[in-house]
Amino acid sequence: MFKAEKSSLVAAFGAVGNAITRNPTVPIRANVLFERADEGLLLTGTNMDKQISIRCAASLSDDFTEFTAPCEEISKAVKAMAEGPIRFENSSTDGRFDFVDIKSGRAKIRIPVLPARDYHKLSDSGFTHTIGLGIAGLKKCLAATKFAASTDKGRPYLQGVFLDPLEDGLMFVGTDGYRLSQRLMMDIDEPVMGAPKVTIPTDAVSALFQLLPDDGNADIRLSSEKMMVQFGDVTIITKLLDTDYPDYRRLTPTETLITASLSRKGLADAITRVMSVNSDKGNTVRFSLAAGEMNLRMRPGEKGEAEDAIPATANGEVVIGWNGAYVASMLDAMDSDQIEIAFVDSQCPAIIRKPNDGQNHMIIMPMRI
Amino acid sequence: MFKAEKSSLVAAFGAVGNAITRNPTVPIRANVLFERADEGLLLTGTNMDKQISIRCAASLSDDFTEFTAPCEEISKAVKAMAEGPIRFENSSTDGRFDFVDIKSGRAKIRIPVLPARDYHKLSDSGFTHTIGLGIAGLKKCLAATKFAASTDKGRPYLQGVFLDPLEDGLMFVGTDGYRLSQRLMMDIDEPVMGAPKVTIPTDAVSALFQLLPDDGNADIRLSSEKMMVQFGDVTIITKLLDTDYPDYRRLTPTETLITASLSRKGLADAITRVMSVNSDKGNTVRFSLAAGEMNLRMRPGEKGEAEDAIPATANGEVVIGWNGAYVASMLDAMDSDQIEIAFVDSQCPAIIRKPNDGQNHMIIMPMRI
Repeated sequence: MFKAEKSSLVAAFGAVGNAITRNPTVPIRANVLFERADEGLLLTGTNMDKQISIRCAASLSDDFTEFTAPCEEISKAVKAMAEGPIRFENSSTDGRFDFVDIKSGRAKIRIPVLPARDYHKLSDSGFTHTIGLGIAGLKKCLAATKFAASTDKGRPYLQGVFLDPLEDGLMFVGTDGYRLSQRLMMDIDEPVMGAPKVTIPTDAVSALFQLLPDDGNADIRLSSEKMMVQFGDVTIITKLLDTDYPDYRRLTPTETLITASLSRKGLADAITRVMSVNSDKGNTVRFSLAAGEMNLRMRPGEKGEAEDAIPATANGEVVIGWNGAYVASMLDAMDSDQIEIAFVDSQCPAIIRKPNDGQNHMIIMPMRI
Repeated sequence: MFKAEKSSLVAAFGAVGNAITRNPTVPIRANVLFERADEGLLLTGTNMDKQISIRCAASLSDDFTEFTAPCEEISKAVKAMAEGPIRFENSSTDGRFDFVDIKSGRAKIRIPVLPARDYHKLSDSGFTHTIGLGIAGLKKCLAATKFAASTDKGRPYLQGVFLDPLEDGLMFVGTDGYRLSQRLMMDIDEPVMGAPKVTIPTDAVSALFQLLPDDGNADIRLSSEKMMVQFGDVTIITKLLDTDYPDYRRLTPTETLITASLSRKGLADAITRVMSVNSDKGNTVRFSLAAGEMNLRMRPGEKGEAEDAIPATANGEVVIGWNGAYVASMLDAMDSDQIEIAFVDSQCPAIIRKPNDGQNHMIIMPMRI
């Protein structure tokens, strides 16, 4: 049937495995689809919400027949083989194709297969818009927003990253209602205005992020229901959330009164310190900006109390409560050494951003202290 | 009270934490004991089955008072501090010592403490024999035997490593009744005959193994109830199993008929291959020695079947069933490239050993195939 290198197969199974559910109710959903491609094999895995296909170098014989095999088992078998080429053979005797034999040296592993005709896939057509963009920028935008997406099943419409095609570029947004992050992607081939506004489900974002290389270019195709991303040998198709995304711009305060400048790492370390006690008491930290410093305090509890202070230059004073873990997650997703926090007062959302960055920022809601 | 380097404290908490239970029924059992040592601090943790103490460089003030503090919390607090010296202060106001303040730079973390007088420890006296030995050899003996100790709660007397003081040295033995490993330690200062035969509980073996450096010397003190091991700044005391260990020598066949020589890695890889299918069907692998090779076969099941073969020189033929995972664990604990397997027949235990090694070996029981 075909012959391929162990390393190529292991990489391909690893990629398509991201779209395959373990122990699905329909057995064939645990399987990888093996099809003939222009040069070699096309391997596909899907849970019918997202789908990952990858081309894999292989030499196919003329009698190659499409089939599907359980991803976990076939991946385990291939990993156990010695490095080098691995042969796959149709081991059926009476005309039925029930097993594939995986061979390397003296080793032979026989795995049950299911027919390719029973394997449903997501359609790769029906897209209305194509956006060509740089992968490095795309990864930055996904990293800067996906952490803020909601994991609350009561808010399914926030469980993803929202793409908002604007005049200046493609705006990425993630929010769970308590924190928000928005980042504008400008490394795009053509204007994106007019493309549909869509929300990519969080687990598709994670799979995409994991498979994207560090650079190169990708094509994104969009319809209002589906997105297809293509780069290198990989094609990812995902259904989109069929809910409206709230107007994220309303969360951002239009006018702030106090601006503080401080070290990102300094603030992150201080948060870790004050949160090292009373982890059972919630994550509310009291932040107090005054006299050239930001003071952090975790309220006294059974297991102790903590405070720390770091230098901060500011044009005013404010005391505010934030979820320390949320602020830490935001700082972690930023890449500048110095950051700016802009406040209205202790009751309003505050803006955290790279100094003087007017397009990308994060928002954190206050908590009662 | 005292001042110590973050790195020394983190290492010390990491060590004593091995003896401390999470969420114990008696709160003080979650705590570390801080005492004055000859030079610096002596930190101790114990669950009253095993106890770990470590000396930690520190400068103590004259008013230093012994105390205990929760290991997890104090460790987390110290880890969150900046690198460098950390100050600990008794923060009590009215003569009671209720909290310790941990300070570094502007950061202050307050942790509740409990009195040292309420902290029970295992006694470090009453030992009848002392054995001085090389740590490198000790680690090898522990590694070669602990994996084979039983984890079956129905066989508490096998849940540890047995030490048998012999004329030639100290024999280490681990077995769960299905596999056995014995290894003789000869790098010992004096004869050990007459020292008590003891069984070290598995979790004490693991803690000891983890804390032992790669070389140097250790002193082992033994009584029939307790063992104390000292090396560097560390002292470990453990209670011993108060059950009799079965006569391990009876498991070893005295006369074998067939001996095979084969590659350890080759056999381990072949086992991984045939066991990559049907993991739900148990671990029985059919090993068949004939015609210059060892053939391995996993019986056909719903999820497939597998076979492999590797070269083996032997003076006979035999077909036997073994638990493949057990054989793999034994090969993993050996360090020679080539191994020897000695058989009586397909119904008897077989011996796996380094070629021509008369003192150290492993035993594997057959399974029905």
